[in-house]
Amino acid sequence: MADPVSENLSEESTEKNLLADLLDQPEKNSLLLNELLELHPADFADQFEQLSNDERESLIAETPALISPDVLAELEDEVVENILPLLQPGQIADAITELDNDDATQIFEEMEDEQREEVLDALQPGDRANLEASLAFDDETIGRLMQRDFVAAPAFWTVGDAIDHMRAAGEELPELFYNIWIIDTAFHPKGFVPVSTLMRSPRSAALESLMNNQIMTIDQNMDQEEAAYIFEKYHLISAPVLDADGRITGVMTVDDIIDIIQDENKEDILALAGVSEAGVTDTAFSTVKARAPWLFLNLLTAILASLVIAQFDYKINQFVQLAILMPIVASMGGNAGTQALAVAVRSLAERDLTTQNTWRVIRRELVAASFNGLIFAVALALIAYLWFGRQDIAMVAFIAMIINHIFAGLAGIIVPLSLKRFGFDPAVSSSVFVTTVTDVIGFLAFLGFAALMLPAI
Amino acid sequence: MADPVSENLSEESTEKNLLADLLDQPEKNSLLLNELLELHPADFADQFEQLSNDERESLIAETPALISPDVLAELEDEVVENILPLLQPGQIADAITELDNDDATQIFEEMEDEQREEVLDALQPGDRANLEASLAFDDETIGRLMQRDFVAAPAFWTVGDAIDHMRAAGEELPELFYNIWIIDTAFHPKGFVPVSTLMRSPRSAALESLMNNQIMTIDQNMDQEEAAYIFEKYHLISAPVLDADGRITGVMTVDDIIDIIQDENKEDILALAGVSEAGVTDTAFSTVKARAPWLFLNLLTAILASLVIAQFDYKINQFVQLAILMPIVASMGGNAGTQALAVAVRSLAERDLTTQNTWRVIRRELVAASFNGLIFAVALALIAYLWFGRQDIAMVAFIAMIINHIFAGLAGIIVPLSLKRFGFDPAVSSSVFVTTVTDVIGFLAFLGFAALMLPAI
Repeated sequence: MADPVSENLSEESTEKNLLADLLDQPEKNSLLLNELLELHPADFADQFEQLSNDERESLIAETPALISPDVLAELEDEVVENILPLLQPGQIADAITELDNDDATQIFEEMEDEQREEVLDALQPGDRANLEASLAFDDETIGRLMQRDFVAAPAFWTVGDAIDHMRAAGEELPELFYNIWIIDTAFHPKGFVPVSTLMRSPRSAALESLMNNQIMTIDQNMDQEEAAYIFEKYHLISAPVLDADGRITGVMTVDDIIDIIQDENKEDILALAGVSEAGVTDTAFSTVKARAPWLFLNLLTAILASLVIAQFDYKINQFVQLAILMPIVASMGGNAGTQALAVAVRSLAERDLTTQNTWRVIRRELVAASFNGLIFAVALALIAYLWFGRQDIAMVAFIAMIINHIFAGLAGIIVPLSLKRFGFDPAVSSSVFVTTVTDVIGFLAFLGFAALMLPAI
Repeated sequence: MADPVSENLSEESTEKNLLADLLDQPEKNSLLLNELLELHPADFADQFEQLSNDERESLIAETPALISPDVLAELEDEVVENILPLLQPGQIADAITELDNDDATQIFEEMEDEQREEVLDALQPGDRANLEASLAFDDETIGRLMQRDFVAAPAFWTVGDAIDHMRAAGEELPELFYNIWIIDTAFHPKGFVPVSTLMRSPRSAALESLMNNQIMTIDQNMDQEEAAYIFEKYHLISAPVLDADGRITGVMTVDDIIDIIQDENKEDILALAGVSEAGVTDTAFSTVKARAPWLFLNLLTAILASLVIAQFDYKINQFVQLAILMPIVASMGGNAGTQALAVAVRSLAERDLTTQNTWRVIRRELVAASFNGLIFAVALALIAYLWFGRQDIAMVAFIAMIINHIFAGLAGIIVPLSLKRFGFDPAVSSSVFVTTVTDVIGFLAFLGFAALMLPAI
């Protein structure tokens, strides 16, 4: 049974990389270049990203024009950062002029200061002003990402007025748009008319009669994650962005929102695993840099757990069975805690976990943890008894397992909630806290009860 | 310093739940009902989901009309499943008639067989045929999710022809659309014209001259994840869905794609943590059911690790320090493996990890793992020496740490790649395999070298 995902992987393996061919067989250049120019920029970018650093450099040295503005917009940030020093300021300025605001800003962000100056000097005054206006906003806010061009009309216009205006405005309009914002004289949004509604209505209809006034707006200083949530919740295709006075100053469209959603999801999944950032184009060095700090933190918490074990070394000396069983208790707790944590982090990201249902969710985790704890406490006690033939060791395993499961479940929900309450990202560093709890409690409960309940030999 | 996320949480806490108020203060009914009717269906659904099961039931018993078709479409699947038995077949049939195809199908899927019959009988023949056509497709394929209404036009039409046609067609057209598909006489797509392009072009322009022929199409049997990838990669707002003969049979739009993306992301993040499925509305029982199987699997692998420890119990009897240090080696390996795994699973989901760069990525993981292994091997060796004053134990810790880090890095990338190669979801069950490797190798390397290198006492 072949699933679509693996089929795809094998398809890709037989698919040739045109760029690699170009490097291997320079004699076929013109033929390959033609094929390359017909590629969608996103496909071109994919193939380019598969190349090694050296291959990329020699390709750009040979044919810099291959890196078109659209390709530059499709490439991953790290790749853009790597190749920008290889491009001329003029080429970059042309790309920035041609691209949408958000793409232009992102490319600019990847440059060194010196190159920035050169590129700014090469820009037309209007484009330069636009770029500088975007850069005035904080990173990851909507002001940086929004388009500055949009289509607005007063409510008293008819469909015919709007169509005539758009036909006349031509190049001033954004290339693609999905809604026309209905504004008052002060540029405050009153509602919107989807372009498809405009299209099917008679020329004489007033925009006011077609207008939907349940309009969702976005503040220019809003965090991108918040904006993505609004788009997702209300199924928006585009939304007007308002300045401090509530006037429309730009527009966000859903294609950029998808990129934000994927970035935030990637951040969460990596943060839960203790990785700061990652991409397939990373070097071994950046990989070490992104992971070592979390491993170091884990080392500290593992030592903490070892200090707990060390307190009971005399008991392990008497019963080596304790050393054999104790990792099971810690491991089961760690897993149960990670489960609860992943569910909580995801619920927080989806805004499903609010102050209204917090207690219900904590109670649910507690009940589920107790129940799972009981199941696996019985299982481990049975195993311990069959393995070592001692009721007392089985009893110690039973108690420790229940206790650790309960702590695991509670830590899995309370740690991310607390991090969020104090203004931190609940996905980042939660895992370390939760496994510290489950390791320490696991060893402490198991060895502690062993010290209490097993006879001194 | 307040971050936007935590601010939001506290905002929500002061926000009242209108539905809860309605239940608490029936005397204010008419006032609250008016307020409720002005809520966006997505907000209404949010408030409804926060209620307990009992509250939901009494609310529906009192005012079933509150559950409008749009609200039904916004509610989470589990909630829909719970409340459907409380609604009359007529009300459900009305909702199915009014809703988009994909929403109607999803609601139908949540019904018991008996209720399905009643609802099908209450539907108009045309709506019933539409619903049955969607249900004929496999779950999670595009055929189930697509809209069946779309706007198509032949290339020889002018802008004026298209506008006149749309004005005449009225209700037959989908409520919102973003592109007009240009087709030949056999309904094969040749290209598309965005509605905004149509809008700003003169009436006399031929569609052929406006048409973009770089059209991305989706097969009706395509898996939803594959379709989401295509939308994301090519920044699509809508795409035509083709039947087996390559004719347009429907259309997918980006708002449904966002739901798919979020579902798949949720699946990945939960699968990596060993949770089958989860939502904030789950009961404690469904929580246990979703987590216990993975905990059971973890119990088996933990026992495997314990069996390894048991082979060396005589050595632990001689050196209790081994019992104190061995969890550190296993824990560090587990963390390093989880890091590599999360990066690999995410790269696979984003299709960044292909057969072309597999070896490069494996090599990178190997180098990074060796380097991190070396750093933390030195750290642990130092700690072991300072703690226990024995060079030989420090040496054992040093060697075991390097070995386990290397196995962790390799398992983190090779396990998900292998799962995918054999047609399994790389996120599901990867964690168990990886931590089994790091636990078993961690204990085996540490205790094995201890047995070899430490003197028999």
